[in-house]
Amino acid sequence: MDSSFSRLNICTVCFLFVLATIGEGGRLLVIPQDGSHWLSMRAVVEKLSERGHEIVVVAPEVNLLFKESKYYTKMTYSVPYTPDDFAERFRLFSDQPFDEVPFLSMVVGAFKTMMYLLEMLFVNCESLLRNREIMRSLEESTFDALFTDPALPCGVILAEHLSIPSVYFFRGFPCGLENAITKCPDPVSYAPRCYSRYTDHMTFIQRLVNLFISFLETPLFKILYTRYQEIASELLKREVHLPTLYRNGSVWLLRYDFVLEYPRPVMPNMVFIGGINCEEGKRLSQEFEAIVNASGEHGIVVFSLGSMVSEIPMKKAMEIAAALGTIPQTVLWRYTGEVPSNLANNTRLVKWLPQNDLLAHPKARAFITHAGSHGIYEGICNAVPMVLMPLFGDQMDNAVRMESRGAGVTLNVLEMTSKDLSDALKAVIYDKTYKENIKRLSELHLDRPIHPLDLAVHWVEFVMKHKGAPHLRPAAHDLNWVQYHSIDVIAFLLAVVLIVLYISLECCLFCFRKCGWKKGRLNKKSKSKSQ
Amino acid sequence: MDSSFSRLNICTVCFLFVLATIGEGGRLLVIPQDGSHWLSMRAVVEKLSERGHEIVVVAPEVNLLFKESKYYTKMTYSVPYTPDDFAERFRLFSDQPFDEVPFLSMVVGAFKTMMYLLEMLFVNCESLLRNREIMRSLEESTFDALFTDPALPCGVILAEHLSIPSVYFFRGFPCGLENAITKCPDPVSYAPRCYSRYTDHMTFIQRLVNLFISFLETPLFKILYTRYQEIASELLKREVHLPTLYRNGSVWLLRYDFVLEYPRPVMPNMVFIGGINCEEGKRLSQEFEAIVNASGEHGIVVFSLGSMVSEIPMKKAMEIAAALGTIPQTVLWRYTGEVPSNLANNTRLVKWLPQNDLLAHPKARAFITHAGSHGIYEGICNAVPMVLMPLFGDQMDNAVRMESRGAGVTLNVLEMTSKDLSDALKAVIYDKTYKENIKRLSELHLDRPIHPLDLAVHWVEFVMKHKGAPHLRPAAHDLNWVQYHSIDVIAFLLAVVLIVLYISLECCLFCFRKCGWKKGRLNKKSKSKSQ
Repeated sequence: MDSSFSRLNICTVCFLFVLATIGEGGRLLVIPQDGSHWLSMRAVVEKLSERGHEIVVVAPEVNLLFKESKYYTKMTYSVPYTPDDFAERFRLFSDQPFDEVPFLSMVVGAFKTMMYLLEMLFVNCESLLRNREIMRSLEESTFDALFTDPALPCGVILAEHLSIPSVYFFRGFPCGLENAITKCPDPVSYAPRCYSRYTDHMTFIQRLVNLFISFLETPLFKILYTRYQEIASELLKREVHLPTLYRNGSVWLLRYDFVLEYPRPVMPNMVFIGGINCEEGKRLSQEFEAIVNASGEHGIVVFSLGSMVSEIPMKKAMEIAAALGTIPQTVLWRYTGEVPSNLANNTRLVKWLPQNDLLAHPKARAFITHAGSHGIYEGICNAVPMVLMPLFGDQMDNAVRMESRGAGVTLNVLEMTSKDLSDALKAVIYDKTYKENIKRLSELHLDRPIHPLDLAVHWVEFVMKHKGAPHLRPAAHDLNWVQYHSIDVIAFLLAVVLIVLYISLECCLFCFRKCGWKKGRLNKKSKSKSQ
Repeated sequence: MDSSFSRLNICTVCFLFVLATIGEGGRLLVIPQDGSHWLSMRAVVEKLSERGHEIVVVAPEVNLLFKESKYYTKMTYSVPYTPDDFAERFRLFSDQPFDEVPFLSMVVGAFKTMMYLLEMLFVNCESLLRNREIMRSLEESTFDALFTDPALPCGVILAEHLSIPSVYFFRGFPCGLENAITKCPDPVSYAPRCYSRYTDHMTFIQRLVNLFISFLETPLFKILYTRYQEIASELLKREVHLPTLYRNGSVWLLRYDFVLEYPRPVMPNMVFIGGINCEEGKRLSQEFEAIVNASGEHGIVVFSLGSMVSEIPMKKAMEIAAALGTIPQTVLWRYTGEVPSNLANNTRLVKWLPQNDLLAHPKARAFITHAGSHGIYEGICNAVPMVLMPLFGDQMDNAVRMESRGAGVTLNVLEMTSKDLSDALKAVIYDKTYKENIKRLSELHLDRPIHPLDLAVHWVEFVMKHKGAPHLRPAAHDLNWVQYHSIDVIAFLLAVVLIVLYISLECCLFCFRKCGWKKGRLNKKSKSKSQ
């Protein structure tokens, strides 16, 4: 083993050397998205800064999470709305899942509040691209690359305008538009479409619906991005096709891991960094340590519906509180709303909780989560079985994935009763299969040759150093739809086959007529002779 | 930078810890292929052995490269041919590319000698699977995984028989059969088929031919593997479908890198370890150091047609010797045949050369190679422009790839004249673009987060530890051809559309008849009234 260890050390020294040489300071422009999108992207930015790169983060002056930082220079631009407007739009968006209305109204409501929020985010982009001062400053600076969350295309447009290579970092588009953009095959037969709540094993009807949902992808892209296309055309002073701009992204850092996602085709310029947000559990503060220790042998349940949800209707809160009272575990519930009057003794409401550190604690027995991707990965990393209450976005699909792997129970937050939640909690805590399944997923997830954070840093530096990653760009981008699907080739072959068939048929007919005619003539002759 | 370095160190310690915990000795069964296939697989086996795993390599008693080793236990089985038979079949195979015969005869000849060689390799497999003593010994042993080169399916069959997970390690099947097996989409419009000599940018006619070649993949699979299917059915005592057995491979370690291969869709259980054979250049022996130093400012040219080719026809050898004499560089030519009488003073014939170490020397100016994948990657790693003389197998395609990237010139070894070789050598040595291009490819290739050897070791250990990698298995394997392509869903939709159209048409006709009839009756009535 000594010799093996020394070889390993040499290899590690090489690895360190490579990282060290890459780390010679470059300049990186960052165009992020606000909210949870920024959380793990910030970790990459901080690590890049530590490695000697100079980083400029461009953000709207009214925002949720873009704080001043020693790791980067923050450049803000003014926006035509107040912090109150901003908070109100987010509040409407996060309240909407709790509206008890018929299904169709719920869908329409969800779409409306989403578009209302997206409208503001478009205004952000417009404000940046029309801000002469900032744009001039960016044009006059030199950046090695642009690092952006491409969920909305402001960074994509800016990279084109500034003619710099870009790296995308994100969770995925609605309905896997990244597959359409990267020309990544996306088989509708076993790759479930977003919001479908299907797994990778679908019935005939589910495959049919999945196909229908896939038809909605292009219109959805148009609804979401047409206005960006217009503003891009204005800035770039030419007709712009947004998917073509998107294709210029050198590397797609996707927060996917195949213990959560269903395996399916991918492209060489997609790098998977799911679980990038999982850190090793840190020691708890005295306050939380005391609560956890007091939980005794029963341990704790961690409960959070994410930073977006601060309040839920009192009726629902009371149902939840009642359910939490039925288990012997101590429940730590992150909740900033009004305290439900029936809150049991085992439940502690807190305004904030160190979610990952609590989940990493050996006493963690279950995790009640809204199934946001950050939380899900923290649950996986720490092998804590989950009760999933998806609210919006990709959360429904995340929840289905965890449930289909036997690592959690999904509840419909609107329809669930107190008993449903109580049963679900007891199941994931006392039915050993949930714990075994999440432990297996956790082991698979954590057994990786390099930490996702280092992988992300590597690829950003790669693009900075080599001015892109052209060797990973598939030639598919140079083909049109007809060529890509070989329709012209197949049509040509069909035409040849038809022509050959036609000529053969004509020849046969000709021969037949010839023979028939001769026979006819012979018959005539023989008839005339016999007459 | 200090803080960055300390964070990096912590991360590296974690990485070491993960590797160290994985490295707790397991037992690995290795079923390799002989010849160059074994070269880089051996490096992985040796590293796994160093990390404390117990390794058993099963090989035929008559072989090329399976030597005794301190790294593994070699288990040999007898075969019904002599070393002379063995050498003769290899000789015929390696001599065939130099036969000066018409194209069609050449194709038939190549196919015949290939089948003649494959016949012997089938006999190997048969001898192993019917060797009761060895089979009993393997059945009674416990292995954590089977590590095999699946170019021929002996290891694949054995893994199924022993019910152990397997890891595949190889360069690729003829005609990308690995894509058909792994259900990896393989777009015929920009993924050139093997032996086509096309790039990823094809004309209409090339795409047509590419489609035709793709039609040959299934018959080729049948020609190559039907006999294995029969022997597998005999061993497993049930009807066996070989592609289904192949699908049980947990991880495919593919010696691909996208600086050489054209980017195209891949699957999550494909791990790319192209360039695994490139080591850092070691110090040359005194003999070679002296030759290289004596080359002066002009430097050296390294020339090898691989270990398979020991002799070439004298006429061709003299043409080559004449060409080599036209450049001022010292040429080191690995050649064991008769010395050409016109050998110039600048050319040194050697029976063996330290290829990678010579290419790594700053005086290396060009590399004349048969375009085998090992050599090509050594050329890329060391950034030496190439003159490519492909002989058989994937070498034609490798050569096209290097040439299409502007890093080499391809020659047809049969048709080339002395002047062609001389011109090609002068081009790659004196035209700076070749050096610039190979340097760029080299930088892209070497800038990776982890060395391919460590990556390969990681994934073998992963499969050993977790008894496979089921989370990377796509659900596509559970669909039949019709379901996978959604043909049933599309047919259903078409049927619905046709039925709706038919009913609508019938309704219209009914209404029309009704109206027409009424009108008709009215007309009749009016007529009868008017009469």
